[in-house]
Amino acid sequence: MAQGKTPVTPDDGMTTRQRRHSPLVVVHGGTGKGKSTAAFGLALRAWNQGWGIGVFQFVKSAKWRIGEEEVYKTLGRVHEESGQGGPVEWHKMGSGWSWSRKAGTEEDHAADAREGWAEIKRRLADETHTLYVLDEFTYVLKWGWVDIDDVVTTLTNRPGYQHVVITGRDPHPKLLEIADVATEMTKIKHPFDRGQKGQKGIEW
Amino acid sequence: MAQGKTPVTPDDGMTTRQRRHSPLVVVHGGTGKGKSTAAFGLALRAWNQGWGIGVFQFVKSAKWRIGEEEVYKTLGRVHEESGQGGPVEWHKMGSGWSWSRKAGTEEDHAADAREGWAEIKRRLADETHTLYVLDEFTYVLKWGWVDIDDVVTTLTNRPGYQHVVITGRDPHPKLLEIADVATEMTKIKHPFDRGQKGQKGIEW
Repeated sequence: MAQGKTPVTPDDGMTTRQRRHSPLVVVHGGTGKGKSTAAFGLALRAWNQGWGIGVFQFVKSAKWRIGEEEVYKTLGRVHEESGQGGPVEWHKMGSGWSWSRKAGTEEDHAADAREGWAEIKRRLADETHTLYVLDEFTYVLKWGWVDIDDVVTTLTNRPGYQHVVITGRDPHPKLLEIADVATEMTKIKHPFDRGQKGQKGIEW
Repeated sequence: MAQGKTPVTPDDGMTTRQRRHSPLVVVHGGTGKGKSTAAFGLALRAWNQGWGIGVFQFVKSAKWRIGEEEVYKTLGRVHEESGQGGPVEWHKMGSGWSWSRKAGTEEDHAADAREGWAEIKRRLADETHTLYVLDEFTYVLKWGWVDIDDVVTTLTNRPGYQHVVITGRDPHPKLLEIADVATEMTKIKHPFDRGQKGQKGIEW
């Protein structure tokens, strides 16, 4: 599908090569499974290209994505030891971000979320990573903890070659507007409907 | 989301623990991006649990999923060297399956596809892997190369604890019927619409 003629030839003054190397904003929304899972799948290709990956999990439960976290830390170690792939950083809001001096304020998720976004802004300005995964970031916008206009401006004006993948339900319309790729994951069937709980290896 | 009370308590004579450890058939359909990507994301959790993973790619282009293939081969190597995670096998129809003695018959994709399915049936009977990814397998069913009723019977009666993830557009209704989890990925926006071609690190 990456091959062949595209339906329109854009009138943006860019060559195909330039367009081919455009940094993307990717949004995975919807109520189905696979939003974050697809983001971490996408990051596999990025890692294999040697890109630096920064994951920022805007969720509180420590159990979430523990499998992916372990794998990405392993891949980061492979990179350090052999030079294969790219470097990996995995940060989670959990009970306070790893770079933060203050202990996690279990009570003030909004402040934690804002601190996460402030750090991501600094990193985007510094061009720290090539691929950013902002996992479950849509909720932070939905609840007004982080200003959507600030996010739109920051992402639109980010320098260099930096891809940003954002996951979560109900992505803000302004976010979808600036997205280059947006996919909605829709549940057709889920074991929860049959009264089945999550299981390890599948859900975490 | 893996936590908490499920909406119904099933009357299937199983304990929650038994139900929690049910092997699943997972289907990723739809026209959007992320079907295969989410499958390879899901397999990260499986690998981290030490599960044996078998990937079977029913596509012809060698470029497809090369990033994921590299990463999973790396994870397989990590497992061999350190015991971390699970073993990984990655097979692609490409120009003939790796286990097949005969050279790839570029002309007879149907025969190649049938051979792939026959091997998967043998492996399911032998309980070779814990997680099977049958990438782009829906097309093989759609085009009638492999019999849907054979697939339904085989998956329904597979022994032991084996999860099967199937990706591709237009999953057969009979496949959706036996699926435990089914997600549809719907495109909202894609750079192709703007005349942008695929780029490395993102598309492969």
